[in-house]
Amino acid sequence: MNVVVGQSGGPTVAINASLAGVYQAAVQAGADKVYGMRNGISGFLQERLVVLNEILYNEEKIELLKRTPACFLGSCRYKLKSAEKSEEEYQKIFEILTKYEIDCFFYIGGNDSMDTVDKLSAYGKKIGSKVRFVGVPKTIDNDLMVTDHTPGYGSAAKYVATVIKELVRDTEIYDLKAVTIVEIMGRNSGWLTAAAALAKGDDCNGADMIFLPEIPFTMENFFQKIEERLQVKKNLIIAVSEGVKLPDGRYVCELAACGQGEDVFGHKQLTGTALFLAGECGKRFGIKTRAIELSTPQRAASHIASLTDIEESCRVGGEAVAAAMNGQSGVAAIFVRASDKPYCCETGVADIHEIANLEKTVPVEWINADGTDLTEAYLTYARPLIQGELTPYFVDGLPQHLVLK
Amino acid sequence: MNVVVGQSGGPTVAINASLAGVYQAAVQAGADKVYGMRNGISGFLQERLVVLNEILYNEEKIELLKRTPACFLGSCRYKLKSAEKSEEEYQKIFEILTKYEIDCFFYIGGNDSMDTVDKLSAYGKKIGSKVRFVGVPKTIDNDLMVTDHTPGYGSAAKYVATVIKELVRDTEIYDLKAVTIVEIMGRNSGWLTAAAALAKGDDCNGADMIFLPEIPFTMENFFQKIEERLQVKKNLIIAVSEGVKLPDGRYVCELAACGQGEDVFGHKQLTGTALFLAGECGKRFGIKTRAIELSTPQRAASHIASLTDIEESCRVGGEAVAAAMNGQSGVAAIFVRASDKPYCCETGVADIHEIANLEKTVPVEWINADGTDLTEAYLTYARPLIQGELTPYFVDGLPQHLVLK
Repeated sequence: MNVVVGQSGGPTVAINASLAGVYQAAVQAGADKVYGMRNGISGFLQERLVVLNEILYNEEKIELLKRTPACFLGSCRYKLKSAEKSEEEYQKIFEILTKYEIDCFFYIGGNDSMDTVDKLSAYGKKIGSKVRFVGVPKTIDNDLMVTDHTPGYGSAAKYVATVIKELVRDTEIYDLKAVTIVEIMGRNSGWLTAAAALAKGDDCNGADMIFLPEIPFTMENFFQKIEERLQVKKNLIIAVSEGVKLPDGRYVCELAACGQGEDVFGHKQLTGTALFLAGECGKRFGIKTRAIELSTPQRAASHIASLTDIEESCRVGGEAVAAAMNGQSGVAAIFVRASDKPYCCETGVADIHEIANLEKTVPVEWINADGTDLTEAYLTYARPLIQGELTPYFVDGLPQHLVLK
Repeated sequence: MNVVVGQSGGPTVAINASLAGVYQAAVQAGADKVYGMRNGISGFLQERLVVLNEILYNEEKIELLKRTPACFLGSCRYKLKSAEKSEEEYQKIFEILTKYEIDCFFYIGGNDSMDTVDKLSAYGKKIGSKVRFVGVPKTIDNDLMVTDHTPGYGSAAKYVATVIKELVRDTEIYDLKAVTIVEIMGRNSGWLTAAAALAKGDDCNGADMIFLPEIPFTMENFFQKIEERLQVKKNLIIAVSEGVKLPDGRYVCELAACGQGEDVFGHKQLTGTALFLAGECGKRFGIKTRAIELSTPQRAASHIASLTDIEESCRVGGEAVAAAMNGQSGVAAIFVRASDKPYCCETGVADIHEIANLEKTVPVEWINADGTDLTEAYLTYARPLIQGELTPYFVDGLPQHLVLK
């Protein structure tokens, strides 16, 4: 029995832990070869396969893999067309599966990737293939349905909360009125921006306001709330999602005179929300403002990964293998929370239809009435996900990574 | 005997380690009270003093202080006028020194702060005061004269090199042509941007090009070099200093149609160099580009501080106290490197005139002929400064800080 595993979509700090989990569980389940596809399904179509058994041959390599950000096998943003529209592609995929005697296909990714699992599984059933297709979720956005949370979210949330704490220290040193706007990833859901709320504690005032895309944003409301708070506090630090939207549905950053336009894929470039809002604040209040975009480190800062996230991401990979071994296909491994305090989270499986192409946003009841903070319910939900650290292997002062040459 | 210590200028991750060093050495030297001035000299003028002995009363507090970014005592950007122009202010300062029976005045800061030490020391000598004034350098910019390197640089360099490694992993996952531009702090000197060169190693290709303000920048040269490299490598990651300048002396970001103007202090806002260059690259080459500004975390990321930097920053505070106890005034504590391999660095003192208001840039001979990389000489110089880690105290998943309420 051979299996193949691939990674797809945007990176996280934990996606390689899921790869490690799939690999270890597959070997344990008796797989002869565990193939890795380079650059996801698009590399698979070109038969760009590696034999992971030759790469992850000892515990040290596996531990190093868990400490490596982004997709060890490379990624792609390739969405399969429907089988009706491009059957040739499906035939090609199943030819390769047969050629390499592959019984199980694991795909680690976000909701687009779950769509790939869904389509391949359905096509396999139609042609009577016995190959099982199982998805392993991942995304820093935490926007997948059914699963309690997504692998990768905990580490990104820990990074965001850590940096917000450090920025609060940095902003409070001057005895001057100032507003700092911190832009956090999340195009349609505010989960990662919400993590700014975790910074508040005995040793930190936290962010003064947090704006999520779940609540429509208006400049008047934004200015008014800042004005109110500046009367009681000199230095404000405000977390905003890159995806905050006006009541008419436009992104706030589209108001910028100097918009960034679209990227080569036609996605609107959202960079610039904090820059725009800081500029407007400066004009309105005549005070020092600063825009900080947390940017790519949010999904790449493995040097401060959440141990809980890494361990769970590993386990959810193992759950996917167990599901395939039980003959399941067209499913994804998920997290099912058993309890908050003490935190206890089990793994399970869900029908891929319940996940693919859907988005879960922050429940509005977890946002305070003011629309500028998260409630205790969110903190209870998110706090367990950032617990523990996976210390990097430092060599010559820097974290080491496992790299596929 | 009482002493007073203050912090001034922009924060670093190590400025509180110097505060700890001054505090511990002063107590050891027999100081009755170690006063801390809130918000530097401007708070001192308002007699906003705290008694550090009541705050740093055990080893745990001191260790937590060393793990806290930014200025524990608060900072200011207050430059004393000359004694001729505002003698009242000087009289006020010496009145407060007398009132609190202060014998030694320690000021932790950059070259502007060294100017304060210089002026107060000179005025003290003129009026026959016995108070000693000693500076403790700090800056992530590493741009102070005489000292081998500056406290705070090592941690910022470790952060930059770590993030560049993580970004390299992030950028290499797609099988697409792309250019990522990473903007690093440094208005006039490229020291911190140079730290991107430390990322290269067995497990990392490092940044493909590094542009420092020491070498005049032209768009033609920039495009040409990118074009050359894109022929041999798909994904480029380019580190640029926020302060890269055109041959006519203008900052590159001033070319942006949508400039940021000046901040409230009249400093040109440099935000936007990477954003501008990424936009131009996208237009020129029609490929995916991304701009990442490392921003404030460069000076605040105490969660990945260099242990070498923290220990040395502590020691240099002790050296300042030793100098004052020896009767020296108008000096600053500095680092003197004894050897590179094995790395050995001693502390010493220098006349404040040799440091105040001066800037040290990266030696041009440490930049390669191409103007896009650092030489081995830089790596030999910088590598020891990022060694070792000072693990944060994590409580409930986040690094703890010591905060003055």
